[in-house]
Order: sequence, then C-alpha cells, then structure tokens
Amino acid sequence: MNEELIQIGQNAKAAAYKLNLLDTVTKNQILNQFAESLVANTDDILAANQKDVKDANDMPAKFTDRLKLTEQRIKDMATGLQQVAALADPIGNIDKGWTNDAGLLIEKRRVPLGVVAMIFEARPNVTVDASALTFKSGNAVILRGGKEALNSNLALANVLRGVLKKNGLDENAIQILHDTSHATANDLMHLNQYVDVLIPRGGAGLINAVVKNSTVPVIETGAGNCHIYVDKDAEEQMAIDIIVNAKVQRPSVCNAAEKLLIHQDVADQMLPAIAQALADHGVELRGDDRSRAIVPSIKPATDEDWSTEYNDLIMAIKVVDDEQAAIDHINTYSTGHSEVIISDNYQSGQAFLTQIDSACVYVNASTRFTDGFEFGFGAEIGISTQKLHARGPMGLTELTTTKYVIRGNGQVRK
Amino acid sequence: MNEELIQIGQNAKAAAYKLNLLDTVTKNQILNQFAESLVANTDDILAANQKDVKDANDMPAKFTDRLKLTEQRIKDMATGLQQVAALADPIGNIDKGWTNDAGLLIEKRRVPLGVVAMIFEARPNVTVDASALTFKSGNAVILRGGKEALNSNLALANVLRGVLKKNGLDENAIQILHDTSHATANDLMHLNQYVDVLIPRGGAGLINAVVKNSTVPVIETGAGNCHIYVDKDAEEQMAIDIIVNAKVQRPSVCNAAEKLLIHQDVADQMLPAIAQALADHGVELRGDDRSRAIVPSIKPATDEDWSTEYNDLIMAIKVVDDEQAAIDHINTYSTGHSEVIISDNYQSGQAFLTQIDSACVYVNASTRFTDGFEFGFGAEIGISTQKLHARGPMGLTELTTTKYVIRGNGQVRK
Repeated sequence: MNEELIQIGQNAKAAAYKLNLLDTVTKNQILNQFAESLVANTDDILAANQKDVKDANDMPAKFTDRLKLTEQRIKDMATGLQQVAALADPIGNIDKGWTNDAGLLIEKRRVPLGVVAMIFEARPNVTVDASALTFKSGNAVILRGGKEALNSNLALANVLRGVLKKNGLDENAIQILHDTSHATANDLMHLNQYVDVLIPRGGAGLINAVVKNSTVPVIETGAGNCHIYVDKDAEEQMAIDIIVNAKVQRPSVCNAAEKLLIHQDVADQMLPAIAQALADHGVELRGDDRSRAIVPSIKPATDEDWSTEYNDLIMAIKVVDDEQAAIDHINTYSTGHSEVIISDNYQSGQAFLTQIDSACVYVNASTRFTDGFEFGFGAEIGISTQKLHARGPMGLTELTTTKYVIRGNGQVRK
Repeated sequence: MNEELIQIGQNAKAAAYKLNLLDTVTKNQILNQFAESLVANTDDILAANQKDVKDANDMPAKFTDRLKLTEQRIKDMATGLQQVAALADPIGNIDKGWTNDAGLLIEKRRVPLGVVAMIFEARPNVTVDASALTFKSGNAVILRGGKEALNSNLALANVLRGVLKKNGLDENAIQILHDTSHATANDLMHLNQYVDVLIPRGGAGLINAVVKNSTVPVIETGAGNCHIYVDKDAEEQMAIDIIVNAKVQRPSVCNAAEKLLIHQDVADQMLPAIAQALADHGVELRGDDRSRAIVPSIKPATDEDWSTEYNDLIMAIKVVDDEQAAIDHINTYSTGHSEVIISDNYQSGQAFLTQIDSACVYVNASTRFTDGFEFGFGAEIGISTQKLHARGPMGLTELTTTKYVIRGNGQVRK
C-alpha cells in the first residue's frame, strides 16, 4: 500500500471529523465563497486546463470537449455551487424517533458518511460538483480523476482548498490524488480503514473495474440499458413522442433509451411510424426478424445488442408476444436503470410497475426523467443501479448515513 | 466458478422473482406452517443434529452448545417463526411520494432486495431465523452455514422447503449450500450476477474474510468493541449498574461492553467501587498505569487490548484527562458498534452524541440495548457496523430496498 495514499486517507478522516461539526450557515457561506473564488481565478484555471487540452490533442473531439473549460463553463460551475448552497442540508434530520419499552428515547439521525472517494474520467466539472455535494453533506472527499485532466483538477481543487484555509477550516476536506496510476487507484479501492464509500463515475469499463476490485463499499452508478415497451393498449402518438424523446434528446447519457419492445398486436400498425420518426432523427435501427419483417430497413440485431448500452443514436427493436415476454426480456437484459411501459391499460401498467426489477419504472413517460434535478433533489451525485444503500438518482441525502442517538436515565437490560 | 453454484444462483433469482409477487397473508400462512412443520418433524431434525453433535465431540463445550438442538429449541424456533409472521410486512410501503415539476407522480416504494446470501457458523438456529426473515421480506436466500452443522441445516431447510412445495411455491426460495468448502464460499462471494447482498454472521475472522474477498455487496455485522465513558458528572451508582449490566449480562455477544474510560476527576472516587463490582461478577480487569495506581489489582493492559473484542469476562480500563480524550480514544479504537457516556452534564452528553462515530451512541444506558428486539423491530438479522445501506440493528426493513414507481401521462423531457 502506497504510503502517500495512507497519509491522504488519514488526512481525510481527520478533516471529516471536523466537517461533521460545521453548521449549515457556515457550510453555505463556504460554498458561496467557492463560487466567487472560482470566477476570480478563471485565468489560472484556464491556463492549467489549456495544458491538459494541449496534451490531449490526439484524443477524439468528444473527449476534449468534456475536458475543455471556458470562462462560461467556470461561471456555470460557480452557479452550480450557489445552487448547492441553497439546498436543504440533510445532516441532523431525524428519519424516525420513538421511545422503546424500556423508556429509551431513540432517534435515527442523519449524519455524514465520513470519507467519500470518487474515481472518475477526464471531466474537470466533476471535481467541483463532487466537492460541493460532499462538502454540503459534511463529508471529506478524495478525488481521483482521469490523468488527462490532472492539471485542471488540481487548479480547481486548489481554489476550493484556498477558501477552506482562508476560513480556518481543514483544507484536506478536499483532496486530489496527484498520482493517477492504476496501482494507486487500486490501492484506493482497498483503503477500507479510511474510506467509507467509493463512487465510480464514468463508463461501464471503469465502473466494472471498481466493482470487481474494491473492498471499500461501492455505489455502482450509471450503466443504463433502458427499455421502452409499447403495450397493445398504447396510444400511438404518445409512444412516438416518448420513444423519440428518450432516444434522441441526449443519446450519450445513461437515462437514454436503448431498446424498444413492442406488442405483436400493434407492431404492424405502430412500428412503421415509430421507425420513421426515429430514422428522421438519424437513429440507426437494429431489430429481430419480426420487426424486420414489418420494417425492412431495420438492420439485423445480434444477441449482443440486447445487453449493449449504445450511448449513441442506435436503438434495437424486438416484437414480443405479450407483456410477460417484455417483462422477462427486460429483467434478463436490463442494467436495472430505467424502464417504461406505454399503455392505457390499468392491469398492464400495474404488472409492469410491480414486476420490473429496476431503479425507476415508468408508465407513459420518458426515461430521461431519471435524474436528480428532474426528480426535484436539486443535485445529483450519480444514479445508482445497485440495490444497497441507494437506488436511482442520488442527491445529498444519499451521501449521508444514519446513527442511532439514544438517551436514557440509567436503563439496564433485564 | 462452480457450475452447481451458478445453478443455485439462477434458482434463487427465479424464486425471488416469484416471491416478490406474494401478498402478506400468504407469506404469513407459510411462516406459520413452517412453525408447525418444524415441530411435527422434531424427531428427524434431532436425528440429523445428533450426527453433527457426535462428529463435533472434539470441539469445545461452547461450540457444541450452539450446535446442539433439543425439543425445546425446536419449539423456540417455531415460536420465532410465528413472531415473524406477526410482524408488519415492509414490502410495498411508500417511503416518500411526490409530484415533480413535470407532473409525474413519483413514489419511492419498498421492494425486496432479491437474493440474500448468508455465510454463518455452526449455529442451526440461524438457518431458520434467516429463512424466516428473508421470506417475510420477499427475498430468496442462499445459506452457507458452518460445515459442522450441515446435517442439521439440511434437515431444517428440508422441512421449510417441503412447506413451500406443498403450497405450490418455489422451494428454491430457501437453499442450503451442500458444499461447505472454502472454495465454494469464495465463489459465493463473487456471484454478483445472482446475489444482491451477502451478510456474514459470526466472529471477526469470518466477517473480515468476507469483507476482504467479496465483490458481492456486503453488510458487515457484529464486531463490537463497545466503550463506556464515565464522565466527571456521572452518578456513581448509575455508572456501576450500567457497567456491570453491559459487561456481565451476556459477555459473549457483540453489544457487551469491552472498555471502560473514566474521567481523571472522578477516577479516584469511583474506580475502586466499579472495579469491585466487576470483580464480584468474575470480570478480569486490565488497565493503564493510571487506573492501576488507583486499583492495584488491575492487571496491565497492552496496546492490543484497546482494539480487542474479548467476548468474555474481561474489561480494559483507562483513565482519561477529559471528555475529548475519551471521544478521541473511542473514535480511534472502536469498531463503530455502541458507545455510552454516563453523565448528568448536558454539554458533555451532547458532545458525545455528536462526535462519536458509531452506529449507536447512548447517554446513561447500557450498550446491551443495541438489539433489534430491544429497539422494537420484533426481529434482528444482525447489527450493521458499516455506514452503507443499514447501520445498527437490522430488522425486516433493512432486508428491503426501494424502487421509484413513476406514473405519467405522456411526459417527455424538455
């Protein structure tokens, strides 16, 4: 184990201990100062970012677009920080409280997790976003971003740490790993003594690697092989509107729809119009034999398609015998993110809502609503596709745990 | 990966899917039939258990006592099953519900975790207990008990599976691993595709091995290096009563107190009486130099003592300068289970409750109350000492997760 990393872990633990004692007013003042200070240091941040962008000039445009900062993007980060300052603070909330038979006053109270580590790709905005959400929820954070964004991440974190220091707070509440090697990332996944939870943010490869290797508890986020099932009692225009929105509004994100299942009774009628609407938006269609018999322009799908998250303008289509076949297909191939039924039939809707085993299950709405902001949380640290701790969009509350606070007057157990 | 284990995982997943659809009345009827059937099959169960006990005749009495079943113990298991039947069913509860800005009706609804695996030691009662709690909460269970209890576990599970079968339900809702090798246990820890959560129950060695090896999400339970801090404003008699209860009522369990910290201002006055009361109950005392200067019969403690969970009639004692020293000591050495301050000072109590980072933090009560039954949950699957998902005593609700159920009328994201 890397000695420097152990020191970082110890620093984070010590900082977390003090963060737990900050009141909300103080935390909000700091968050607003973070915002001001980022804007005031725009030039330094852009200079650091330009080094990263220059070094990454061989990478695809999609990659450098995420990496690149501009004056406007820094302003947007500042606005994001102010929004986090305006959110309600979950710390200290009492989820439940009661008196037990022995007369103990028991409260289940929200407290910070402690030390949160994040492993993410070369997206400098995550540095600011994750720092803001972990700070507001009273947690120390250890950030390990993609190596291509290291200069940008350090510049951003230095600004935030400067604000902490100026206010007499422990700047180790926010730490960036300078060492972006795989070996050190792997060590971070085994830093159980100091890290309470590890949240990977990025593509399926990154997330799987963390899940497979980490002994620190992980919150799995983001993989979204989302399905839309068009039932026999679907309204055609509603189906078209939802499918197009879910597929094309932002195809690169995890809550975009990737698969379309359609009931055989309505496939002849609806599939041509749906396929046309998708094609009009530049979507490549792949399908099973039955869908291709109806719309010959659909390319053949392979077995691999059913479990693939394209993150692109591609959609695979399958004609199913009935709702049960749709449910079984989804529960087999889905990543457990978001699934939709389009139906005006009460029983079909209920069966789908009950039997689909995913974080978010919809009747008659777009998968694109699976989002912390759309849900009204005012923030999003990620979308959990696991069942432990948090499932679905995660806001500030999901960055907390609880402890039982118990007041007695001398009770002993009989 | 063991082929047979993959089959077990697939069976469990299929059974879980069907369990999710059972209503509470049906589940309760089955639980009551479990109880009746256990009693009716007492002879077969005892015969199987006698084989296990005979094979374990070289083991210490403590071990065989836990392993041995009697007619009365089977009756107690049956009563336990009836109690689980009488508990409220958490499935379907709505934790929160609201309408978002787009008009979507969003519910956060309690659903089963799916497949729960448990690895535990040679205690046949865990087979029945865990089967009851997972069944009531709609989960399939895979049980891997200590090899010394295999015949007993199989006999018990066969009775429960027989009841499931007789009622036309999937008997794979309850499965026992016949293969109790370490290799297969290790494979179970990597069965991510089929197992949603793994709960180890047993000693520190077992739990640490699971935490270190498992890629399936784990709920860490049970390690309890619990502390009692006697503040300068403690009432002496209350301190004695609580310390004695916490230490001696049941020393082998995780919520027994292991360490005593005492404020230097009251140590001269109170420590002799406390030490005497503990010695009267046969407790071996180990302490730092300051405690030994006050009570010379206290044996010297080593550094290792401060982090050791004795699970025995032993207690280590340390005189501290002030409350902050006590808090720092506890946050350094505690396993995060249960800690107590004995004090009539408001500020001392508040500081302790706020700053101690453990699942259960008490003022003026015994650590022995950290228990699902004492908390009023009516059940206990274990006591979580981790921060993710569940912390403290876990009842039925902690064996569930949530999913977002969302009803729209054609909403698309703008």
